[in-house]
Amino acid sequence: MNFETIRYEVKEGIATVTLNRPEVFNALNTAMMNELIAVFDETDLDDKVRVVVVTGEGKGFCGGADLSKGADVFDKNKTGSAAQDSPIREDGSFDYSKESARDGGGKLALRIFNSLKPVIGAINGAGVGIGASMLLPMDIRIASEKGRLGFVYARRGIVYECCSSWFLPRIVGISKALEWSLSGRVMPAEELKVGGLVSEVVPHEQLLPRAYEIAREIADNTAPVSVALMRLMAWRSLGMAHPMEAHRIESRGICTRGRSADAKEGVQSFVEKRLPVFPCTVSKDMPDYFPWWEEPSYF
Amino acid sequence: MNFETIRYEVKEGIATVTLNRPEVFNALNTAMMNELIAVFDETDLDDKVRVVVVTGEGKGFCGGADLSKGADVFDKNKTGSAAQDSPIREDGSFDYSKESARDGGGKLALRIFNSLKPVIGAINGAGVGIGASMLLPMDIRIASEKGRLGFVYARRGIVYECCSSWFLPRIVGISKALEWSLSGRVMPAEELKVGGLVSEVVPHEQLLPRAYEIAREIADNTAPVSVALMRLMAWRSLGMAHPMEAHRIESRGICTRGRSADAKEGVQSFVEKRLPVFPCTVSKDMPDYFPWWEEPSYF
Amino acid sequence: MNFETIRYEVKEGIATVTLNRPEVFNALNTAMMNELIAVFDETDLDDKVRVVVVTGEGKGFCGGADLSKGADVFDKNKTGSAAQDSPIREDGSFDYSKESARDGGGKLALRIFNSLKPVIGAINGAGVGIGASMLLPMDIRIASEKGRLGFVYARRGIVYECCSSWFLPRIVGISKALEWSLSGRVMPAEELKVGGLVSEVVPHEQLLPRAYEIAREIADNTAPVSVALMRLMAWRSLGMAHPMEAHRIESRGICTRGRSADAKEGVQSFVEKRLPVFPCTVSKDMPDYFPWWEEPSYF
Repeated sequence: MNFETIRYEVKEGIATVTLNRPEVFNALNTAMMNELIAVFDETDLDDKVRVVVVTGEGKGFCGGADLSKGADVFDKNKTGSAAQDSPIREDGSFDYSKESARDGGGKLALRIFNSLKPVIGAINGAGVGIGASMLLPMDIRIASEKGRLGFVYARRGIVYECCSSWFLPRIVGISKALEWSLSGRVMPAEELKVGGLVSEVVPHEQLLPRAYEIAREIADNTAPVSVALMRLMAWRSLGMAHPMEAHRIESRGICTRGRSADAKEGVQSFVEKRLPVFPCTVSKDMPDYFPWWEEPSYF
Repeated sequence: MNFETIRYEVKEGIATVTLNRPEVFNALNTAMMNELIAVFDETDLDDKVRVVVVTGEGKGFCGGADLSKGADVFDKNKTGSAAQDSPIREDGSFDYSKESARDGGGKLALRIFNSLKPVIGAINGAGVGIGASMLLPMDIRIASEKGRLGFVYARRGIVYECCSSWFLPRIVGISKALEWSLSGRVMPAEELKVGGLVSEVVPHEQLLPRAYEIAREIADNTAPVSVALMRLMAWRSLGMAHPMEAHRIESRGICTRGRSADAKEGVQSFVEKRLPVFPCTVSKDMPDYFPWWEEPSYF
Repeated sequence: MNFETIRYEVKEGIATVTLNRPEVFNALNTAMMNELIAVFDETDLDDKVRVVVVTGEGKGFCGGADLSKGADVFDKNKTGSAAQDSPIREDGSFDYSKESARDGGGKLALRIFNSLKPVIGAINGAGVGIGASMLLPMDIRIASEKGRLGFVYARRGIVYECCSSWFLPRIVGISKALEWSLSGRVMPAEELKVGGLVSEVVPHEQLLPRAYEIAREIADNTAPVSVALMRLMAWRSLGMAHPMEAHRIESRGICTRGRSADAKEGVQSFVEKRLPVFPCTVSKDMPDYFPWWEEPSYF
């Protein structure tokens, strides 16, 4: 695939997605948003991709919206594709039922939420606004010593976007989420680690090597179909009121996967103390009960 | 407003609420409960209040119920306003549908939960029972080295009150919540910090200065309407089963706030590297979709 | 009661359940599963039991499924009781509505979830698969320095079992849950502590003494009925979308327990600075509103 705003490479089972507008600190524009959504369709479909690593080119991870565009940058009547199909009625009120009324960052977050492959965020520099929030639906985040993130919405006069009001409290707890986002300040890597938003802080030049090491451990040892199912089971369990709901899905999983060729290879390779070679693929061998949920629609 | 059991002061955008019955370690009685509920109506309505700081006068933060009243202190038939309208039927069973059957602490917790202004708890000494639990719906908690908290209910023969069974696991995780409350012991400040219940422990004399510093950062840098919305968005996201629910609210927020005068000032002040002066006020400029939820009633 | 695969002892208010198949690292078979489920019926019914401690005999805590049985160990058509009543139809698809289709580990997890007594996991060695996941519905977990746990499902080609997709993210947060289970690796005790899965790591010979110390503090200081209610209130609050739901239950609890003989003894003993002697028992004195929920059925 050809991308303009991101770079996409697949090597030894690991896809690397690099935000690639370093001249504006990888500020997100509509093109980048669309390409990021598209790239997760690509990684889902390609069985050669076991893990996705997302990082930024140059000094920043992602500077959020491009504020150099001026004071109207968040005004849906004046920017981007929304201007052609404005959700604003003549009397100034909003038609929230228009597609253009939807937060673009939220569409990206929901796409990553449903990824069939684990996603690792490798934070190489500053990420603010959507540049911080897009990391939340990823599974693992590590930061370079130069990494820093800010949920700066209250300082810009707007509010949470990119489903960050849902993801952030679930990752760092409600107290840290409030502390960080009500002040809108930018937190250095070490504070992000203490707060549980990144699992590791590494020397800058070790960022990608370490991200690949984490990806490698998953790719070398685990069954692709198991990982796809488990990623979705864990994320979706957050919406379950009672463990019985998880028990129903897990029971189906244990039934189906328990007699798969993967399970036999998993046991065999363990007993033989060798790396497994799992035969099942995400493109062909997802179980009959998948997807087990009905995805809510926006409208 | 005139209060008898609390002190209330507003200075430079920060309201300070001081529990003020130091002779009984600020034990909560019905008057203090009612005044605390009332003061959050006041802080919501007053645009001059950007942040609320809650602390205690004297050696304690809040000693919970006043146990010097004797063994019947938790008996609804014999204490406080409930005695006039007892929920206890002649056969000894309860009429749970009576207003007097409601836990008073829960009413306070629900009031703070809906605050339009961020609330900072500054824990100056011991808080036990409701004196610990009333801190949970606040957004940020810091403690003096002399601070300590105990969810002592199991030692008194009663149970969680003040909605603490809901708030505590969401703030410190289910394991720490169980560990602390099944034993009913009192935890020192440092353990509260490790557990994630307070974000900082500071020398005793630095408690209020540090609380005001945190408040100052919010008051000086953020838009009041953004903060009111974001506070409620984060807390209410805890009840959402799927990020799509957050996406709907966030999309409305981004639409409405994105073209507000606040958003323009937020971008402008950032570009000009100066403190923002946000024009919108909570009393006049909350968006048309607020409140976006239907508040559940008790009965 | 007579057990074959576990040891069961009650002493001074503390029940100890010891997984007792050390020759296979306490690997779980159907008999052990059934005995573990049965033992929690026993501890619930026996007022002499205030706290349950679960540990393993010998070098391991629980090695999960017994992989020495070969590659078909997870195949429901070929193993255990399911083989007699296979959920697999002739065309190879599954009849998920059969009892045999249910994950056995999930039944155990749901049983522990509903325990009326606090449960402390004392992790004496390795626990993998169900040997790690069965610890999650327990309330407090501590580990010996030799303890280590692995949610190894993805390495075996299967998926979460034992309701672990629900419990794990609630105990360690969604990010740590994903990091640990997508890689399927085994984590040493110290990492489990940093991640919040165990509250303490102690020298190996201190494991049971420390577990009993924690149990002792609960047994000596708290009211049995309060502890039973609070345990269930905290766990069940995780399924509540709004604190109002907790407020309803807590109000009933405060009404009922507030005028109980336990509450009077709780206050009295506090004022008199002595250990309490609570008269109410779990077998006779659970309040009229208990259970306040309708348990979801599997089918």
